[in-house]
Amino acid sequence: MKLAALGEFGLIDRIAARTGRGSGVRLGIGDDCAVLDPGVGVGFLVTTDMLVEGVHFDLSFTDPNRLGRKALAVNLSDLAAMGGKPRHLLLSLAMPRELPVEFVDAFCDGLLGVANEFGASLVGGDTCASLERLVISITAMGEQRPELVVRRSGACPGDLVFVTGTLGDAAVGLALLRAGEREGWSVTRHLDPTPRVREGMRLAEAGLATAMLDVSDGLLADLGHILRQSRCGARIDLARLPVAPPSWQEAGRLGGDPWRFPLAGGEDYELLFTVSPHRAGEVMRLFSGGETTATMIGEIVEGSGISVIAPDGGAYPVAEAGYNHFAPTSS
Amino acid sequence: MKLAALGEFGLIDRIAARTGRGSGVRLGIGDDCAVLDPGVGVGFLVTTDMLVEGVHFDLSFTDPNRLGRKALAVNLSDLAAMGGKPRHLLLSLAMPRELPVEFVDAFCDGLLGVANEFGASLVGGDTCASLERLVISITAMGEQRPELVVRRSGACPGDLVFVTGTLGDAAVGLALLRAGEREGWSVTRHLDPTPRVREGMRLAEAGLATAMLDVSDGLLADLGHILRQSRCGARIDLARLPVAPPSWQEAGRLGGDPWRFPLAGGEDYELLFTVSPHRAGEVMRLFSGGETTATMIGEIVEGSGISVIAPDGGAYPVAEAGYNHFAPTSS
Repeated sequence: MKLAALGEFGLIDRIAARTGRGSGVRLGIGDDCAVLDPGVGVGFLVTTDMLVEGVHFDLSFTDPNRLGRKALAVNLSDLAAMGGKPRHLLLSLAMPRELPVEFVDAFCDGLLGVANEFGASLVGGDTCASLERLVISITAMGEQRPELVVRRSGACPGDLVFVTGTLGDAAVGLALLRAGEREGWSVTRHLDPTPRVREGMRLAEAGLATAMLDVSDGLLADLGHILRQSRCGARIDLARLPVAPPSWQEAGRLGGDPWRFPLAGGEDYELLFTVSPHRAGEVMRLFSGGETTATMIGEIVEGSGISVIAPDGGAYPVAEAGYNHFAPTSS
Repeated sequence: MKLAALGEFGLIDRIAARTGRGSGVRLGIGDDCAVLDPGVGVGFLVTTDMLVEGVHFDLSFTDPNRLGRKALAVNLSDLAAMGGKPRHLLLSLAMPRELPVEFVDAFCDGLLGVANEFGASLVGGDTCASLERLVISITAMGEQRPELVVRRSGACPGDLVFVTGTLGDAAVGLALLRAGEREGWSVTRHLDPTPRVREGMRLAEAGLATAMLDVSDGLLADLGHILRQSRCGARIDLARLPVAPPSWQEAGRLGGDPWRFPLAGGEDYELLFTVSPHRAGEVMRLFSGGETTATMIGEIVEGSGISVIAPDGGAYPVAEAGYNHFAPTSS
C-alpha cells in the first residue's frame, strides 16, 4: 500500500499504534503538543538531527529498519555525549507520496526498537509530503542532573584523552558500500551504529569526564571542537588509536593511507572524552567487563591544535579535516 | 556569499551570534545538546513541524524574512492551541549549497523577530546540506501548569464553538498568489500569519476553553479532530463565520463557492475552541479590547460529525475536507 492510499491521519494512527506510553508523558501523540513531566532537580537535555536522503543516507545501501535504527542512534549519541538519560522523542518525516507504507512500518520498527532499548518513548512529531526525497528529523530529549552534564569546554592541559570502541570502522564501511559491498563488520558499523548511552551516563555520573562529545565528524574534527571550546591543544599517539582488525584489513585493501579512516572518518558515534590523569584507573575499572572498551589515545596540552605522533615517534602530518556539510568537495 | 564558502561551522557561529541567551537556558547553541531548566510545577510542552520547499512554501511567493516568521509562527500556534507559554526553540535547516548566506541571515532575522516577540529563545538545531530543496524543521518548547493545558478531547454537548480572528483569508491569499498576485491583505495573512499565543494562554489560564486547537488544515477538518477526540458532533452556522471583508471580496472575484475558503481553507492559524455556555460572556470580556476578536460560530451536539446551517436556515452540504498530506489530489 502506498502512503497516498493510507492518508496522513491513517499514517499517524498507524505509528501511534506501534508506540507504547512512556513514563513522564502526560499527553503523547494526537494533540497539538505533547505534554511531559520534567523530572525534579534535573536539567532537560534536548538535541535534534536532520537526515536527508542522498546526503546522509542512500536507500540502495540500507534497509528501512536499519535506517530507523540509525536515525535514532545518532540523536541518542548526542544525549550520550553529555551524559544524558534518554526520555522522549519527536519524529518528523517528509515522504514521497508513492513510498510504500511497509517502508514506514519497518522504519518505525527499527527506530522504536532502539528507543525501547534505551528507555525513550515517542511522544509526537510531524508527517508531511516531500516531492522527491525522504527527510527525517528527530528531536531527542533526555535528562541529567545539571552539575553532572559533561560539556565540550572542560578539558585541561594534562588531562588524558580517551575514546570508546574503535575508530574508522564507519568510514571504511561507507567506502566499501560505495564499492558495491553490502555486508560485513565495517558496513554494519556504518549502517547500524550503537549509541554509547550507558557509557556516557556512567562517565557523567562518576564525574570522570572533564569534556566529552561523540565522534560524528571524525576524530580530528571532533577533538578540535573540544580543544577550541576548552582553549587548549592535544597530542595524539597514532599507535594508540583503537582500530578493529576487520576494518583495518579492509582499510589496507582500499589503498591510500589507512590512518585517514581512524583520524578523519566520521560516523563512528563513539565517545571522545578527557579525564584528569589521576583518575585514569577509574576509567579502566568503569569499562572493565562492559559492552565496549575505552582506550587512552593521547593527552591535552597547553596551546592549540592537534599534533599527531607517528608510531616511529616522529610527527605525523595532519591535513584532512572532518565532514563539513557545505564544503564544495564533501558529499 | 554562498553557504559553500562560509562552511557549516561558520554558519552555526553566524546564527549563534544573532541569538540572545534566553531565560532557563543553562547551555545553548554549540554543544551536543542544549540544557534547559524546566520550570517548577509546570508541564513541558513540545511540538514540531517540518516545512518542505515546493510542498509548504514557494520561494517565488515569499521572501526569506517572512518565511522565517511563518516557519516559527506555525509552531508557536501549536503551543498556543494548548495554552502554552513559548520558551525554547530548535531550528534545523537542510539547504542547497548554493544558497546565499544572506538568505539564511534574513530567514533567521524573521524567525528570531517572532521568537523575541513571544518570549522564546533559540537554543540549538542542526544545519546540513540538501540536494535540491530547502527543508525547515522546528521544535518549539513551552510550558503551562498541567491542569490548565487545553486538549482536543474536552468538548461536551452544549458547549459553544468559538474561533479567533477571521477564517479563509490564508486560502484566499494562496489562491491569489497562485494567480500571480504578491501583496494585499489575504496574501499577507497567508505569508505572515500571527500565532494567537497570548489568546491561547489567556483562555487556558482562565480555564475557559474545554477543547482547543489551531486551524491549520481548515475549519471543518480541524473541528473534526476535536469532535472525534471529544466523541461528539457540532452544528455550525454559516452566517456566523467571521470573514474579513477584503478576503471575502477576493473570494467572490475568484469564483466558485466562496464558503469553501472559511470552511475548508487551511493555514489561518486561528484558535478554534469550545466553551461551556454559561461562560460565553467571559470569552467576550477576555477578548474585548484585545488584538483580535473571538466569534461564536456554533455549538457542540450529541452524536458525531458536523452539520452546517446555511444562512436561509437550511442544511448546507459539506463535502470538502481539509488538507491531507498524502492525498493524491492535494498539492
